[in-house]
Order: sequence, then C-alpha cells, then structure tokens
Amino acid sequence: MKVTKVAIVGMGTVGTGVARLLLDHGDRTARHAGRTLWLEKVVIRDINKKRQVDLPEGLLTEDLNEVLDNPEIKVVAQMIGGLEPARTILLKLLESGKDIVTANKALLAEHGAELFDRARELGRSIAFEAAVAGGIPIITNMSQCLSANQLNGLQAILNGTSNFVVTQMAEKGASYDKVIQQAQELGYAEADPTMDVDGTDAAQKLAILAHLGFGARVNWKEIARTGIDVLTQTDMKCADHLGYRIKLLAIAQLTKEGLELHVSPTLVKKGRPLAEVQDANNAISVDCDAAGNLFFYGPGAGQMPTASAIVADMIDTAVGRTELTFETLKLWSKQPPRVNLREPNTLAGEFYLRLTVLEQPGVLSQIAGTLGEHGISIKSILQQEGLSKIESTDGQTRKYVPIVILTHKTSEGASRQAVAAINTLKCVEQQCIRLRVLD
Amino acid sequence: MKVTKVAIVGMGTVGTGVARLLLDHGDRTARHAGRTLWLEKVVIRDINKKRQVDLPEGLLTEDLNEVLDNPEIKVVAQMIGGLEPARTILLKLLESGKDIVTANKALLAEHGAELFDRARELGRSIAFEAAVAGGIPIITNMSQCLSANQLNGLQAILNGTSNFVVTQMAEKGASYDKVIQQAQELGYAEADPTMDVDGTDAAQKLAILAHLGFGARVNWKEIARTGIDVLTQTDMKCADHLGYRIKLLAIAQLTKEGLELHVSPTLVKKGRPLAEVQDANNAISVDCDAAGNLFFYGPGAGQMPTASAIVADMIDTAVGRTELTFETLKLWSKQPPRVNLREPNTLAGEFYLRLTVLEQPGVLSQIAGTLGEHGISIKSILQQEGLSKIESTDGQTRKYVPIVILTHKTSEGASRQAVAAINTLKCVEQQCIRLRVLD
Repeated sequence: MKVTKVAIVGMGTVGTGVARLLLDHGDRTARHAGRTLWLEKVVIRDINKKRQVDLPEGLLTEDLNEVLDNPEIKVVAQMIGGLEPARTILLKLLESGKDIVTANKALLAEHGAELFDRARELGRSIAFEAAVAGGIPIITNMSQCLSANQLNGLQAILNGTSNFVVTQMAEKGASYDKVIQQAQELGYAEADPTMDVDGTDAAQKLAILAHLGFGARVNWKEIARTGIDVLTQTDMKCADHLGYRIKLLAIAQLTKEGLELHVSPTLVKKGRPLAEVQDANNAISVDCDAAGNLFFYGPGAGQMPTASAIVADMIDTAVGRTELTFETLKLWSKQPPRVNLREPNTLAGEFYLRLTVLEQPGVLSQIAGTLGEHGISIKSILQQEGLSKIESTDGQTRKYVPIVILTHKTSEGASRQAVAAINTLKCVEQQCIRLRVLD
Repeated sequence: MKVTKVAIVGMGTVGTGVARLLLDHGDRTARHAGRTLWLEKVVIRDINKKRQVDLPEGLLTEDLNEVLDNPEIKVVAQMIGGLEPARTILLKLLESGKDIVTANKALLAEHGAELFDRARELGRSIAFEAAVAGGIPIITNMSQCLSANQLNGLQAILNGTSNFVVTQMAEKGASYDKVIQQAQELGYAEADPTMDVDGTDAAQKLAILAHLGFGARVNWKEIARTGIDVLTQTDMKCADHLGYRIKLLAIAQLTKEGLELHVSPTLVKKGRPLAEVQDANNAISVDCDAAGNLFFYGPGAGQMPTASAIVADMIDTAVGRTELTFETLKLWSKQPPRVNLREPNTLAGEFYLRLTVLEQPGVLSQIAGTLGEHGISIKSILQQEGLSKIESTDGQTRKYVPIVILTHKTSEGASRQAVAAINTLKCVEQQCIRLRVLD
C-alpha cells in the first residue's frame, strides 16, 4: 500500500485527538485514502511535558526543522492557535513544500488573504474544515456539494460556548455569571471567555463562510456584532413567554443592497430547528436556490469532533481532492469580490428591546413616541406583574419595572438611534438592551 | 477557460432541472469547476414532445449513439429511472468511456455490484449523490467528510412521500387514503405509490448507505421492512398522546452480533430532531465515534434539489474528485464485507402494538399473558374512552375497543411471534399492528 508521510505541529487537545486517529485507526485512513497516512513527526514546545496519548519512540521533537527539512513529509496538521507564531510557522511550512491542514479560524480570518495567496504562488493548499463548526463538515458542503447553487442566505450557531450558556440560562434559570463559571469548570469556556461571548469567534467564522458561500471579501471586524454578555434572566423569561428562544446567531443574507452580515443574540421562534439546538452544539441553516433549505447540526467543538475534521482534510489532501478544490475556490484571492457588504446601518430586521423604566403614568407614551420619531412601529409590548423590580436609593423609593417591546421591521441604524434616544429619557433607569428577532 | 463536454440521457423532471442549471447558470459551474461544463447533447425518447425548458438548436437527439460515439463527451448524467433499459444504457455509456452521474437508487440497489465492478474494470466512475436524500449531500458526507470515523449507527427519513403522508395524517387528522390522494394531486406521490409507502424505496436507499457507511454487502430485499400503509388515525392519536410522532425510519445500527438494518414506521419522541422533520423533507442522523452525532436535514426529492446533487456530481467528476473517491470507496467490490447483517429475528427494540379487542373482562390478562409467554414485558398501556369503537354485525352487537401497548426492549423475532399468537385469540378482532419505538 502507498504511504503518505504526515506531521502534526502543536499537540494541544485537538492535536492529541488527531494523533490518536492516525495512530490507533490507521485502517480507516487507509480505507478512505487508499494509502497509509504515516505520522512521521509531532512538533511540540516542551518534550518533557506529560501527554494524554502514548506516542511511538522518536516521534516527538521540539525542532520544527525536522519537519521543514524532511521532503518526505507532504501534509502537516498545523494545530497552533492564535496569530503568532502560528502565521510564521504556517508560511515556513508552505515554503518548505507542505500542504497545510488547520483549525485556526482566527488566523484565517485575520491573515487569510496573505496565506492563501502564498499557498497559491507555491502551488500548495490550505484545508480548513475544522476552522468552522468543528465536526460538522460545512466547509466541504459549501465549497463542493452545493456548487450548483446560488446561496441566498445562511443562519448559524457557530459558537458552542455561547450556545451552552444561553441553553443553561434558559433551562436552569441561572444567571449569566453563574453559567459562565460552570462552563469554565466543564471546559466549555476558556479562562478568559471574551472572544466567545462577545461575538468575535462567531464573526470570524461568519467571515470565512461569507468568503466561501457568497464570494465576499470581508474582514471579520467589519461585521456588526453583539455578544451574549448583555443577557439577563429577564430576557430569557420574556423570550420564553413570547414563544422564542434566544440564540447567538451569525447571519448572512443576500439582498439587492449587498450582503448583510451580523452576529447577535436573536430571538428564534420555538420549533424552528435553530431554536432547538442545545448545549455546545453548532448548526447551520443554508438557503440555496436549487437544493432548498438545508440544515446541518452537530458538535461544534471538542477534541474528537475537531480531530475528525482535521483527519478528513488530511485524507482529502493526501489523495489530491483538496488540491483540486483549492485551485477552483480562489478564496481570499486578488479577484474582485462577487458581492459587497451592505452598509451596516441599513440592515433590516425586527428587534427586541428591553428597558427598565420608572413605574409612573406616561412612560410608555414617551417611549412609543421616541420609537415613532424614528419611524419604528411596535408589534407587541410585554409588561407583566411578577417581573423583577428595582428600588433606587437616592432618598426616595422609586419602583422600576422592565418593559419588553418587539418592533416591526426597521433598520439597524434606526433601531440604534431610537435606543440611543430612549436611553436619554429621564424615566429610563438602565441602558436599553436591543436583540434581533427571527420569526 | 477549459471546457468539459457533458450530456444528459433522459429528460424527465430532474433531467430538465439539470439542463436548466447547466444552461442558465454556467457561471456557477465555471466558478466551482474551474472550467465550463458544456452541455453537448440531450438524449430523449420523443423529440417532438413539449419541454419545460428552451434548449439550444441541435441539442436534442433520440439517438444514444450521438453520445456514445462522441469521444469529446466525458460526463453523462444518466437520468432514466427503473431497471431496464437504464442498466443496459449505463453499461453502454461506461463502455464508450463516459463517467456516469445518476440518481437511480433502484438500479444501484439491484445491480450496483455489476455496474461498479464494470466501471472499475474500465477505469471509469459512477457518482450517485442524488440517489439518496435528494438535495442533502449525504453520500459525499459519508464517503469523504466522515472518513476518520467508525459509524456506530444511523437513523434516517429517506422517503419524502411517506413523510408527507404521516405529517399530514398527524396534523390534519385525515385518513391514510385521503392523504395519499392529496399527495398524488400535489405531485408528492406517484400514481402507483406502492414503492414509496411500503418501505421499498427507503430500504433501497438504506442498502446504499449501509454499503457506504458500514462496508456491508446487502441486497435491499434482505432488509426487514414495514410500510406506512398499516397506519390509521388511531395510531397517530395514540402516538401523540404518548408523546411521540410516527415517522418512517430507516435504521442501521452496529452491534456485536452484526449490522441491524430495518425500515419501519417508528414512534419517535417529540423534540428529537427526527420527530420534527416535516412534509416531504428527508433527514439523516449519523452517530460517529469521533465527530459525534451529526444531523442533516433538507428536501429529499423534487426537481431542483435533485438536480443540484446531480450537477455537483458532474462538477466533481469533471475536476477529478469523483475518480479519486471512487477508487478508494470500493463500493460493491469483490472484497469481503466488513460487517455481516444481524439475523433479522434477533434485532432488538421496543415496540408499539395496537390491537382491536372485544370489550369484556379478562381480555387484557389474556394479551398480557401471551406477551409474557414470549418473554415480553409491558411498559405502558393506553386504553382510552373516546377512541373509536367498532360494532360487529353477526347477529349480536359487540363492542370493540382499541388497546395500545408499549413493550420494554425485546427482539424482532419474539415480538413477531407474540403478535402472531395474539392474532389467534378469540377476543382480538383485527390483526395487531406492530411499530417500532425510538425514545
């Protein structure tokens, strides 16, 4: 049987999973690749560190040159996170003639253009199935299986940590802070969960999908985003009462005015598949003009789901499929974009507004008036007895009450401006929270 | 730009969709294939028949030889249904050097071994994404994206007609016959819907997935199957009452005793993704040891979803990906199977039994006794007032009442034997209906 020698650079959680699949399940890779994927080297930072997996003698090295200088190693799983030294190492690997497989979406979202151009110049390829949605093969599906389609839009849950948090808040009635702590204990959230909960991670992944599915050329920082760190139990309860669940959605929607892209906690009607995605799972709903509406659902992160995507890419690269796909994809190429981004303020949508206001006559008419001045009409209002009240303590005792408003369709810009105006009203105690609504 | 000449043989609904995508959306195929897929010929039976799509002058022919004798045509979408002449035409196309794309699952399920062996001998390929689950790219996902996994099992809704019927019966409360008639009017069911509703179509697709995902070598006729034609409104109502929806599921489950394969109307717990699949959609839930539980959902049939799969295959074939995959897949090859079928009678499961019995004391104890004799214990019994009663008319007026029993886990064989014994009891009016239960 033919042999293709491969290497792993970086032996964190996912790298360990990749080693396991290659070493313990060679029969699978042999069967699907028609050859043995022979793990020749694993480059790590500290050779004395204890590892979760037993590696054959001589496999580990701290010296990247043992991979760079070995022309027999054809495919490298580059498993180092972050931007540097990941970028420099990836460039060195390309220049030494290796094809790359990576899960590093931050690196692609930030330096994709440079890395892909360099790979093309060198006649090499970069495979990145594992960079978006972990075990769900959304990259292959979008770049290969849906080739005959114009994508009209996609709606996705791309951050497992956020989905775990909102699921737990809704189901257990626990506070945001408490659930974050639990997620950290379970390994679903990093020690510093900022990138996950503020929408950065989802925006980076959405940028990659927007390149792939719509021919956009977008830096993830251009994507309007709100994180789940604004959510309270009041939001979970009001959403539930109104027949919705709150999910952190990444949305791309093709319109006449350009491609809408945004990441926001969104009220999704119960019963819609996206609303029912639980825990740390991911899901992508893709609206295609020929294939129709397709829905992909599965583990969005974790050692073995991500390793599964990495090894599938290594097989595709070894047998030559990746090269063929990479050639025609022209991701982050110098070609002009096929679509421009829609100006963020013109993005259309229905919104959920949660205000905390003084309980006194005339308050609602002030708020409704402010919305009206911005051309926004109200679809429904929820002001229930039994929702939490706040007492202020500046000499007088005042009663505050949360009010939730669902608007009819308006624009991102108008809703932003209206919220800014509402926040200046004297009867408004806390900053108004603004979420999107998906019926 | 490079050009690959292609042809379509058979211009039914899906063939017309394929022609539309190739003729009207050449930019998409060019972008994804890095070349033009040039539709050179369309072979039809009657050149004078009116068509849904305007074709350029000279494209249509009644003579298959215009494709066979043209060495410039490399890829052929073989869109003829049924076994013959589809089989003979496919062999002729292979022998004249064409790579094949087809949606004909009946042909593959029946003659797959012969056709694939012949294609391998000739160095040609057969792509068949469209043969299973229409617009959902399950074939590529299983044969390529999940390469690093051992599949433990899959549960799937593979027949859109059946799913439309059970959804309508449950939602509208209409009878089986009425819904079938409606499905025929809407084009969801054939004039003779037998193959769809008796489980044949789903079993043929399951056989293909079992080859692909588990390395089985199975003729679809070996797959235990029950169709939806046994269902009544009583079943829909009882299932709903017990917290389930009834779906026609195709199931593959790897066990120590071999691969379980069966197709049966199954009670699926509400809220599970499979239970919520509506109308003519299909869905596949795949349990993988590394990637975890993945769920794919979308249109399972129809002109454009199926055409989308066909054109994706034509692109994969034109760029060379199919050849690489076909080489390593070894579907229906002379290699020994990787797994044997489990003897059908030993298949494990919980069952739903619906009996119509005489309303008199002691009936339930007779039935429970019969089940006990076959080692089957009862999980719950539903005997409600308000369910339909039947009056027999043999001189005396007797009251019959439906009883529904959910069993604990037992075997296919034991449940079959118990049902046969129950059917001989004097108190039992109609044949007992036996469905599977999935918690």
